[in-house]
Amino acid sequence: MDYSVGNIGRVFAVRLDHGDDILRELEGLAVAEDIRSAAFIMLGAVKEANLVVGPKTCEVPPDPSWEKITDAHEILGIGNIFREEGKPKIHLHSAAGRGASVKAGCLRKESEVFMVAEVFIMEICAISATRVFDPKRGFSPVTFR
Amino acid sequence: MDYSVGNIGRVFAVRLDHGDDILRELEGLAVAEDIRSAAFIMLGAVKEANLVVGPKTCEVPPDPSWEKITDAHEILGIGNIFREEGKPKIHLHSAAGRGASVKAGCLRKESEVFMVAEVFIMEICAISATRVFDPKRGFSPVTFR
Amino acid sequence: MDYSVGNIGRVFAVRLDHGDDILRELEGLAVAEDIRSAAFIMLGAVKEANLVVGPKTCEVPPDPSWEKITDAHEILGIGNIFREEGKPKIHLHSAAGRGASVKAGCLRKESEVFMVAEVFIMEICAISATRVFDPKRGFSPVTFR
Repeated sequence: MDYSVGNIGRVFAVRLDHGDDILRELEGLAVAEDIRSAAFIMLGAVKEANLVVGPKTCEVPPDPSWEKITDAHEILGIGNIFREEGKPKIHLHSAAGRGASVKAGCLRKESEVFMVAEVFIMEICAISATRVFDPKRGFSPVTFR
Repeated sequence: MDYSVGNIGRVFAVRLDHGDDILRELEGLAVAEDIRSAAFIMLGAVKEANLVVGPKTCEVPPDPSWEKITDAHEILGIGNIFREEGKPKIHLHSAAGRGASVKAGCLRKESEVFMVAEVFIMEICAISATRVFDPKRGFSPVTFR
Repeated sequence: MDYSVGNIGRVFAVRLDHGDDILRELEGLAVAEDIRSAAFIMLGAVKEANLVVGPKTCEVPPDPSWEKITDAHEILGIGNIFREEGKPKIHLHSAAGRGASVKAGCLRKESEVFMVAEVFIMEICAISATRVFDPKRGFSPVTFR
């Protein structure tokens, strides 16, 4: 376990519209507003999305298992924004429901908003945090200086 | 996509009690404390709730599909509060589990807390955001001035 | 319903590592940093976890029903930290997905992080909140002075 202590700076109330790609829009916002460290919550709906739903087997580095959403689902999400090699990297976990069916996992790659998604981003100030890729573990842990 | 930049003002630690109606209590609090824009997170349990679990078909405006919860479920929720025609409007997405069964969707209408629900509300200051109904799209997107 | 109004103090960006026990690490952090009241959001994965997934029957005090996670699941969580008898008590609800299977409930007892879990903790200042055990209701509601 490791951690860093800071405080909240700017907050962003964001509306993603029908057809928007969630990660592309949030990455663009992070560049435009120079958001370096942030946490966010999200609620809305998606028409399409790709979720990593666990490793195929319980090994590190993991071989991810995917679920593809191809019909409108209601979602809620929890995420963060940190820089990796100078570029904003979004980490976003979501639960998505349609009828009696629910999926939960790590939202990656392309997605398409259905109607609307609302995101509340809290900038974290006075910390130094970056993602550094670790080939042995197969991901980029947040590293605090 | 559109957004507005502000900062966090007051925060509210809220305990909803057994039998409370979630949306009615939060709307009442927003009126009593004059909360105009806010985001919140919630954890607790419900005995009854109504969830929109996606549109019946992937069309806009949507014809919502409903799941009714009629037995105690553990829930987690992400929501926000904005004004629509001067009155507080709660938007709340939740995942609700009971045994091996889970539902996820948009919590609307009546609900009844089982034992307790705890809500943490963050007021968003220095932004101007309201919900304005759009009959073509069948909902009230948050609009930033 | 009851509530207290405060503001956000320190925020903690936390990385839990492979093998860490979620509740033990967060309780340790709350002691080390003297966190008295806080809300948090979490995203990551667990190899093992124990979830209360509703009461067996809809009665108070409840007889909890459990689901045990014994294989890697992606999770998202919403929680808070308050003191009970002077010690930090974590309340954490999570949705956990693996493949097409999802569980949602109250994460308690032992757990084991798979790869990483990222937690964003917001300290709540200027409120007075503690958990006080109520034997009739079978839990410890947050009480505001």
